[in-house]
Amino acid sequence: MLDSSPRPPVVDTSRSPHVRLRPVPLDAVDLADDFWEPRRRINREVTLPSQYRHLEDTGRLDNFRRASGKIGGAYQGIYFNDSDVYKWLEAAAWTLAEGSDSELERMVDAAITEIEDAQRPDGYLNTYFTFERAAQRWTDFDLHEMYCAGHLFQAAVAHFRATGSERLLDVATRFADHICDSFGPEEGKRHAVDGLEEVEMALVELFRATGERRYLVGAQYCVDARGHGMLGRPYGQHEPSYSQDHAPLRDQSEVVGHAVRALYLYSGAADVYAEMGERALLQALWRLWENMTTRRMYVSGGLGSRYEGEAFGRDFELPNERAYTETCAAIASVMWNWRMLGLKGEARYADLIEHTLYNAVLPGLSLDGQHYFYQNPLADDGTHRRQPWFGCACCPPNVARLLASLPGCLYSTSEDAVWVHLYAEGAATVELDKNRTIRLSQRTRYPWDGSVEIQIEGEFALMLRIPAWCEDGAAVEVNGGPVGAQLSPGSYASLRRTWRPGDTIDMDLPMPVRRVECHPYVAENAERIALTRGPLLYFVEQIDNPGVDLRDLVLDGEEPTVRFESDLLGGMTVLQVEARPAAPDNGWEDRLYRTVRPHEGDAQTHSTRVTAVPYYAWANREPGAMRVWLRNGSP
Amino acid sequence: MLDSSPRPPVVDTSRSPHVRLRPVPLDAVDLADDFWEPRRRINREVTLPSQYRHLEDTGRLDNFRRASGKIGGAYQGIYFNDSDVYKWLEAAAWTLAEGSDSELERMVDAAITEIEDAQRPDGYLNTYFTFERAAQRWTDFDLHEMYCAGHLFQAAVAHFRATGSERLLDVATRFADHICDSFGPEEGKRHAVDGLEEVEMALVELFRATGERRYLVGAQYCVDARGHGMLGRPYGQHEPSYSQDHAPLRDQSEVVGHAVRALYLYSGAADVYAEMGERALLQALWRLWENMTTRRMYVSGGLGSRYEGEAFGRDFELPNERAYTETCAAIASVMWNWRMLGLKGEARYADLIEHTLYNAVLPGLSLDGQHYFYQNPLADDGTHRRQPWFGCACCPPNVARLLASLPGCLYSTSEDAVWVHLYAEGAATVELDKNRTIRLSQRTRYPWDGSVEIQIEGEFALMLRIPAWCEDGAAVEVNGGPVGAQLSPGSYASLRRTWRPGDTIDMDLPMPVRRVECHPYVAENAERIALTRGPLLYFVEQIDNPGVDLRDLVLDGEEPTVRFESDLLGGMTVLQVEARPAAPDNGWEDRLYRTVRPHEGDAQTHSTRVTAVPYYAWANREPGAMRVWLRNGSP
Repeated sequence: MLDSSPRPPVVDTSRSPHVRLRPVPLDAVDLADDFWEPRRRINREVTLPSQYRHLEDTGRLDNFRRASGKIGGAYQGIYFNDSDVYKWLEAAAWTLAEGSDSELERMVDAAITEIEDAQRPDGYLNTYFTFERAAQRWTDFDLHEMYCAGHLFQAAVAHFRATGSERLLDVATRFADHICDSFGPEEGKRHAVDGLEEVEMALVELFRATGERRYLVGAQYCVDARGHGMLGRPYGQHEPSYSQDHAPLRDQSEVVGHAVRALYLYSGAADVYAEMGERALLQALWRLWENMTTRRMYVSGGLGSRYEGEAFGRDFELPNERAYTETCAAIASVMWNWRMLGLKGEARYADLIEHTLYNAVLPGLSLDGQHYFYQNPLADDGTHRRQPWFGCACCPPNVARLLASLPGCLYSTSEDAVWVHLYAEGAATVELDKNRTIRLSQRTRYPWDGSVEIQIEGEFALMLRIPAWCEDGAAVEVNGGPVGAQLSPGSYASLRRTWRPGDTIDMDLPMPVRRVECHPYVAENAERIALTRGPLLYFVEQIDNPGVDLRDLVLDGEEPTVRFESDLLGGMTVLQVEARPAAPDNGWEDRLYRTVRPHEGDAQTHSTRVTAVPYYAWANREPGAMRVWLRNGSP
Repeated sequence: MLDSSPRPPVVDTSRSPHVRLRPVPLDAVDLADDFWEPRRRINREVTLPSQYRHLEDTGRLDNFRRASGKIGGAYQGIYFNDSDVYKWLEAAAWTLAEGSDSELERMVDAAITEIEDAQRPDGYLNTYFTFERAAQRWTDFDLHEMYCAGHLFQAAVAHFRATGSERLLDVATRFADHICDSFGPEEGKRHAVDGLEEVEMALVELFRATGERRYLVGAQYCVDARGHGMLGRPYGQHEPSYSQDHAPLRDQSEVVGHAVRALYLYSGAADVYAEMGERALLQALWRLWENMTTRRMYVSGGLGSRYEGEAFGRDFELPNERAYTETCAAIASVMWNWRMLGLKGEARYADLIEHTLYNAVLPGLSLDGQHYFYQNPLADDGTHRRQPWFGCACCPPNVARLLASLPGCLYSTSEDAVWVHLYAEGAATVELDKNRTIRLSQRTRYPWDGSVEIQIEGEFALMLRIPAWCEDGAAVEVNGGPVGAQLSPGSYASLRRTWRPGDTIDMDLPMPVRRVECHPYVAENAERIALTRGPLLYFVEQIDNPGVDLRDLVLDGEEPTVRFESDLLGGMTVLQVEARPAAPDNGWEDRLYRTVRPHEGDAQTHSTRVTAVPYYAWANREPGAMRVWLRNGSP
């Protein structure tokens, strides 16, 4: 009973009973902007082919060939390397949803053939657990067999939705059947789930693609089973909280442990809620979201404060240089927030998606599309640089699949309404219901300018997100006249009328430079500020500010100047602010601590102009120090 | 050619050619003070017996019985668990050096018997690498075979020096011979050293105890071999710097990697220098010491900023709540500084020994002598509590051996001089040379009071350490009259004369409360102060300050009051300071970040009296928040 309608959405909640918003198919949205579309072109033309080469060069594809007996030799790399192939396939599939590409299709088909051939007769598929390790299948649940399976399922659904092909979907359902036959609460089945959550949301999506309810039941089992101590031991070397196994999800109220694990679990649980509607699950997700966003999130939207365990920290534990903020965690946050947005249609989730995309996901990728950050610190001495690949390469294909599927995040529909979540030049053709297909276009230079012109036709409500950052008041006019709608920051403005051809909505989201302060319990940000403008977080980098130690900068209170520099790193709005360099006084050269003595304060120094650029662009030029948080010299 | 003179010093540099100071035997010093001696009594009467029970209960002694075939079953615990038995034996041996204790001797002899019986015919001894793992000996150099060997050698030397028995020394020399036969730069020998340094200083001490120069050559090899890439791979999962293997020691200038590894290496290198006198080695140690103390050390003297890798951080990376500051690292710092002090007789090393003992080692042990910290944070929410034991139990017996050997750190001699490093009530009988044995006594309430009365006899220079913390001027009188000596903080005052019976030196080290600030590049200590008095670091703990969030405290500039409370936790001087609680203003409840708006600053609140107590005493009462660094409200 496969749903064969062409190209459904990335996360297909079209028929989920407990959602407010309905997704829009990927290929219904055309981006034509100067910000995202060039990045997506690089993703298609540079990133995906180069990642495929890495999959070959590092033996990740050979592992499949080895598993099917085509080649010999040893398994190569980390035990969960299969997942990188699957994530790349998902990225490629969403890219093919935009239009055919024979070279990419050739790579995709070749990879799928290797995967097909490597699957065991019983449906099991994991190239690490073949031959010498076949007997160890399903013995250590932190070796990510279900995690890899989940990425296979997501890739298969993407490939099916993008191309209509059921080749990879057949592989996926055979493996999913094997898992659902083997694991579950029933007597006679194994009671276990993977240490690294991922299969939950994948099984729900496989249910959505195939209509097979047993996959949804399997997903629900994985969410429910965690946190009941039935696993018998902590995963690996870590505490149970590392894998969110310290308590049932419904009892949790703090985001803890490995950040990507946590966020994938929350995403899966949101998917389960969308289908099942269990209130306690949603309430837990709300509590966790509140804790995360008010106590444990970087100003970039980045998540994960600790290198050890790649984990969330305690409340207010947000070190800047040692921020872990894995790129995958930012991506997972977008995934979770997208699901929460769909459940309730609340702007705060879309606000965080926007903020995270610009300021926490994008820094993970170089402007050339071939270098990646795994960790994304908010201060650095110039030694942290992007790498072309990693032994543990989860982040690169994760960025690729997010960029490939990005157009799906711009709009949603609900009964009689079209929702605009993100702003970018381009057009969309949105099916509001069986009888109404709506054409919508945006003209804007967002994120550099907050002016957005929208043209639409039809009778329905247009729900326009007024970003939370737009604290100085948005303005919206229809055909040059005022509208009566509420325009509160952090909400959707509802504009209901019969839209006629030529109707134009002009929205203005003023983008003054904002000085942002941090909760005073975050000790190392005390008396410091970060600069933002519109949705973008800014920072200072050594190359723009030669000859000054960035640690010494004390910002003045004067209004920064704002200038668009079209030649700089693909074009960006640059800020210039007045600051005084205030180096530590004499006496600090040879010690860390000293008795406080009356002193005259920092020597008065001449003020200097400091240049700040968007944080996403850091480390794309010569290595040098950088920082987001700067000392604040104005009262 | 064993040196059978009774009870030589703990680190016996009596005949080392390249030292300035000569050590004093452990049993030449009698402590009779109210601070250390009660702790040492608890160490003897409570800590050592309880640790022996843990060695039994956790299978650490059974591992030896298993290795000798007396019992069956599996090896228990971590692969380097033998080292805990050895470290306990060393602690017990130094305790026996003070006087006999039949119960302790019984435990020591029983443990030695098990060790003797477990040694292989070829001299090899490691209970992890027996039977099923015998073939894996010396295959993975991060499994700590040499590290365990080193602790065996140190225990053996201690037991020999304390008791004159050669039982354990015979085991040690057989194993040392096996190692020196197997490893070295010569062709035909294996070229490898342990990932975890320790055998270096142990081999030097074994050379000092036995006169066997090959052990010194072996130690030199271990120091020299590191950092030449000959190991072929990073140790374990870590970068080469984790084990200080990134560069030859002589080329290093930053303390990096696992802090205990680093400090044990520096200690071993200092021992090698003491014997060999190679200038480049000493210069490297100076550079590393400068980097550590001026860039990478906590105000407590604690070392190691990172949980991941138990490692030093970058310059100025000193998070308070996530401080790792392993108790073993503080102990290792005392060991290294003791060796540096011996090389040159510079007060800065003794200053740091004192500071580290009071403020970084002691917090690792509960007042009841049976609970231990592995990590020693400088701020906490009340959840970090001492444990009775650890799976990786390096710290508990390390504290025990340090307390047991502490009297050896009070004095040294040099030609014609007696050096007083630490102040504590008690007496010593010091052999200045063959013809002169000097009787010296201290009367003092140190560390609570800086008044020290010293009585001595004989013709020689008395070198009195004027602590670096004594910034307000020390005063020294002899028989009530002034002395002409230089009394600079952080130096030794030299008082040379013919001391006659009844001669009395009165030293006064004023102990005002000091407010200490931190280098401004340590971001989270900016605008904060720590309170100290004399050698002690103070902190605030919730139990003494009910009803106030310690994060909100802003200290006033008024002079604290100082009061000795004899009933509090064994007696301690308590500080009371004026502070204003300044809670974050409204609007922070539901967010982490906000645009800076003009506001009226913290609400003016009534001032309150805050109680601060010595940091070593934290977490000995009911759980609660604590912090060392407090916001400073005075200009």
